[in-house]
Amino acid sequence: MIGMALYWLCIFRVFASSVEVIVEPPMWWVGMAQPKLQLLLRGKDIGAATIQLQQYPNVKMLSQQSVANSDYLFVNLLINEGAATGQLQFKVTWPDGQESILSYALGARKKASAARKGFDNSDVIYLINPDRFANGDVSNDTQANLLEGVTPTDPDGRHGGDIAGIIQYLDYLAQLGVTQLWLTPVLENNHPKYSYHGYAITDFYQVDGRMGSNEAYRTLSLLAQKQGMGLVMDMVLNHSGSHHWWVSAPPTPDWLNPKTHLGQFSATSHARQTIQDPHASSNDKRAFSDGWFVPDMADLNQRQPLLAQYLIQNAIWWVEYADLSGIRVDTYSYSDKTFLTEWTKALLDEYPQLGIVGEEWSTNPAIASYWQQGKHNHDGYESYLPSVMDFSLQQAVIEGLQEPESWNTGLIKIYQSLANDFLYPHPEKLLVFADNHDMSRVFTSLKQDVAKTKMALGLLLTTRGIAQLYYGSEILLDNTPSDAHGVIRADFPGGFAHHTVNAFTGQGLTPAQKDMQQWLTQLLNFRKQQAVLHQGDLMHFSPQNGVYVYFRYNDDQSLMMILNNNARPLTLELSRFNERLIGYRHYQSPLQLELKGDLDKPIELSPNSFTLLQLQQ
Amino acid sequence: MIGMALYWLCIFRVFASSVEVIVEPPMWWVGMAQPKLQLLLRGKDIGAATIQLQQYPNVKMLSQQSVANSDYLFVNLLINEGAATGQLQFKVTWPDGQESILSYALGARKKASAARKGFDNSDVIYLINPDRFANGDVSNDTQANLLEGVTPTDPDGRHGGDIAGIIQYLDYLAQLGVTQLWLTPVLENNHPKYSYHGYAITDFYQVDGRMGSNEAYRTLSLLAQKQGMGLVMDMVLNHSGSHHWWVSAPPTPDWLNPKTHLGQFSATSHARQTIQDPHASSNDKRAFSDGWFVPDMADLNQRQPLLAQYLIQNAIWWVEYADLSGIRVDTYSYSDKTFLTEWTKALLDEYPQLGIVGEEWSTNPAIASYWQQGKHNHDGYESYLPSVMDFSLQQAVIEGLQEPESWNTGLIKIYQSLANDFLYPHPEKLLVFADNHDMSRVFTSLKQDVAKTKMALGLLLTTRGIAQLYYGSEILLDNTPSDAHGVIRADFPGGFAHHTVNAFTGQGLTPAQKDMQQWLTQLLNFRKQQAVLHQGDLMHFSPQNGVYVYFRYNDDQSLMMILNNNARPLTLELSRFNERLIGYRHYQSPLQLELKGDLDKPIELSPNSFTLLQLQQ
Repeated sequence: MIGMALYWLCIFRVFASSVEVIVEPPMWWVGMAQPKLQLLLRGKDIGAATIQLQQYPNVKMLSQQSVANSDYLFVNLLINEGAATGQLQFKVTWPDGQESILSYALGARKKASAARKGFDNSDVIYLINPDRFANGDVSNDTQANLLEGVTPTDPDGRHGGDIAGIIQYLDYLAQLGVTQLWLTPVLENNHPKYSYHGYAITDFYQVDGRMGSNEAYRTLSLLAQKQGMGLVMDMVLNHSGSHHWWVSAPPTPDWLNPKTHLGQFSATSHARQTIQDPHASSNDKRAFSDGWFVPDMADLNQRQPLLAQYLIQNAIWWVEYADLSGIRVDTYSYSDKTFLTEWTKALLDEYPQLGIVGEEWSTNPAIASYWQQGKHNHDGYESYLPSVMDFSLQQAVIEGLQEPESWNTGLIKIYQSLANDFLYPHPEKLLVFADNHDMSRVFTSLKQDVAKTKMALGLLLTTRGIAQLYYGSEILLDNTPSDAHGVIRADFPGGFAHHTVNAFTGQGLTPAQKDMQQWLTQLLNFRKQQAVLHQGDLMHFSPQNGVYVYFRYNDDQSLMMILNNNARPLTLELSRFNERLIGYRHYQSPLQLELKGDLDKPIELSPNSFTLLQLQQ
Repeated sequence: MIGMALYWLCIFRVFASSVEVIVEPPMWWVGMAQPKLQLLLRGKDIGAATIQLQQYPNVKMLSQQSVANSDYLFVNLLINEGAATGQLQFKVTWPDGQESILSYALGARKKASAARKGFDNSDVIYLINPDRFANGDVSNDTQANLLEGVTPTDPDGRHGGDIAGIIQYLDYLAQLGVTQLWLTPVLENNHPKYSYHGYAITDFYQVDGRMGSNEAYRTLSLLAQKQGMGLVMDMVLNHSGSHHWWVSAPPTPDWLNPKTHLGQFSATSHARQTIQDPHASSNDKRAFSDGWFVPDMADLNQRQPLLAQYLIQNAIWWVEYADLSGIRVDTYSYSDKTFLTEWTKALLDEYPQLGIVGEEWSTNPAIASYWQQGKHNHDGYESYLPSVMDFSLQQAVIEGLQEPESWNTGLIKIYQSLANDFLYPHPEKLLVFADNHDMSRVFTSLKQDVAKTKMALGLLLTTRGIAQLYYGSEILLDNTPSDAHGVIRADFPGGFAHHTVNAFTGQGLTPAQKDMQQWLTQLLNFRKQQAVLHQGDLMHFSPQNGVYVYFRYNDDQSLMMILNNNARPLTLELSRFNERLIGYRHYQSPLQLELKGDLDKPIELSPNSFTLLQLQQ
């Protein structure tokens, strides 16, 4: 596989008649479910050239399609069953009569590639901002062909973290007990400043040189798998960086949504509810979907079928190339909704069990659930998106753990958020999280209260869903007092040479940080082994007296979780929970082995505590 | 009809062998859609008697059914098509061999009774606490057979208001421009104290003597209709008063849900989300549905089929007897949900266009919409309830008008609440309101700000839905600083002899009160005439700069409403609203005739204002 990667890298830029022709996707595979393939050819006047595929068994060229911009040409292939790996040869006849040959590689798929198991509720996804995690290769920090260099002290500058840094600490991550790595985008972001975050992509087929290379990304995937961890790619369908080549020279006039509307910069309204709202005005709908995120991010028009196909193939390409276990889709609902159906369906047609989670930043579960696969929507909209992010629960946890207990504040918020699960066809596939790279860290939001942070993380790692942990939560990373993105996404201590604290070795960590790291390691490794925490049913009891009790259970096992949201110890009578205690007599905590007892007696709860009990017969 | 009412009142108590036998329903009608009728007979040892129907064409006695309590007997009749009005005669053979005759009246239905048009979105419903509106008959204030007398200065006592008082001021209400009257329950509440509110019913077939009589209630309905207003009855299916005869002597052991659970008073948990929650525990479900509201209100077990049928017939009886245009159902979701389906379906089978609105006090539209007819629910639950109350919009209006404008505060709350309409099969049938008898008055909630109060009421009278106004809103009734129920439900000024202010005549009102009364009269009477405000489509635009704009429109007309939530005047450019302005050139305000202009020029908005414009070609 590695050898093959090298050879397509050598050939996908072809010089003919002194004209450089770029082909995307840069290679493809035989044996895909979808036999059609659309090639984008980019080169001076290529639109006026004639392309002929040289005889290749079971591969047919269906058509070539020129567009308004004559520097582009689209070629449609049919790669039928039985096609062998090898090099396709295209004869390019230029307008001036000259001819050249364009080679295109068809590789072999990894065995059982289509059947890959994506991330699911057995997983805990560790979210990393690669620029801020660890600098494994200082030699790539600054690159001649990339506009921004490193400025380690600037919160909005590049700090030098890279894929090599993550590879370096895979042992640490495996021991911590996480099972998936979600890296914020690593593809090229060639902008003069504020490029570290990765969401303004300037090349959809190229890892940013400061992060490493395509090969390094694939190596990370391979090595992570060896340690039992999958790799999740953060994909951006809504926009590209404004320095992307297609912004200054789009293939078609409708490739991008207009940067201005009525003479002003056309910013997205962020009014996501216009998608569902029966009373929405066309103007608001347009502003949401077609408005630009920021001037540096060009809004893509996925209604343009050539672009839509480009984005679909790009996603499939990365799954196949880097052997991904899943995709996180940025700003999901901002893209054209018909396209989103096509995109997700195409992915699942290729990889039926792939994990795909969309970011729909709404705390309204009626809106978030609209996007989940299997939902019977009021307007008949059919989504294929397996997972959405549970922003409702995130907010409920942060608010609920800090509020006084009343009929509508405190733990009731968590209870009510989960009670809304009837809106989701698959609540067990929701991504649950206490924080991410776009909001204050959980420890900060909870006012640096370690006990509350354990309650939040304890809950999220034991309720239904796919759990997500933000890097550094295990050592109480804290963005107080600023919630600026660059501050939230702080360096992981020990990941950079100049650090004096090293969270990988424990050197310089406070006792509270060490305790949290140890506690989370224990909980994560326990979760990994407990099928009941993955697929088990959830039953919860309405909070009373500041105590929320829930169970995860199946035919064989039962775990009882207790949140005590009181600042005082409390004695909990268990008779109210009898329907889930039947068949069990004792309990023991796997996290605190000294905590055990009989279920017919009350349990003593510590102040502000998360308690996890295994029920025993 | 009035003559007929008198004769059944004379016969429904029959003395036989010195045993008083009470029959409920006290009479019935021929020609109902449902031919079956269940009679409840109550009398010493009636359970051991044998009942025989004397020959009556097209009426059959199907069965008699004794129950655990021998002082009850249920008789099932079939009243087929063609049955004539008249008196059924039942021969009662008592255990001791004595015989007696029980007469039972079958009356004629009002013409086109089944086809009655219920309240709908052409209506504005005026909500009255009858004890607090006007005392039209001081002679009925205290009654020998009813435990509580009048204490006009006690907020929780009876003040003497009655049906006669409402009849007295029907002219006022008609001129105000409301089209429906919803009275909180007027049926007998024979409790020693706190009985004025009416929700602890002790006789489901008898208007409370202090309110008037069944006949007075029917007269109110008749006279209101003459003035173009319908009557809406407030019905309680969930509980009866603890002094109801069936509490001390229930027909069956399962007539009521137990007052205690595990040795303690079994209060409802109010955890309404257990109905939908896939993770709810049985214990929480039971506590919600079967728990008691308060010790004075016995929770009814509608799973008991005899009781279910009793409640269904009771509702039909009142519609037919008092010629109602609709029903408001108290604490809707607290009753057994299977029963609720049967109850509403039975009502609509008899009266397909009857207005029925259920109180589901949840600001979560996903929960409220579960109960609306036509909703495709996740669990297959089928509801027949035409209307639910829009508590979400109520909260959004009160909060939104007081908050600073931001991405998630201020007018956006109103916009988002309405955007959730996709959850409802029939958003146009939602009951919209700024306040009711269970919450602070709108003027109080809005901190006695007249301009904001006009914005709230202006919005609610012009957005989609059936509008509801709480009595006294037109004169800025205010419960500051207490939100105790008895204070919220204050006397309507002028309704009682000792009042010095009279809102009916205007005597003693402040200029602000007079202005609001006049403004609302104008708006209500305008709304009454405008079909576009009833069935017209709604389109709204996302709030910008503290201004929210929406339209009601149909093929012929277009109204433009503007809320300016800024404390300063504002100039509004109209180009953003072009899609709804096409075809129109000018505007004029029906409420401020001097406000007119051309649509191609900006509009000047007053600070904190509600503006209603009619578009003109």
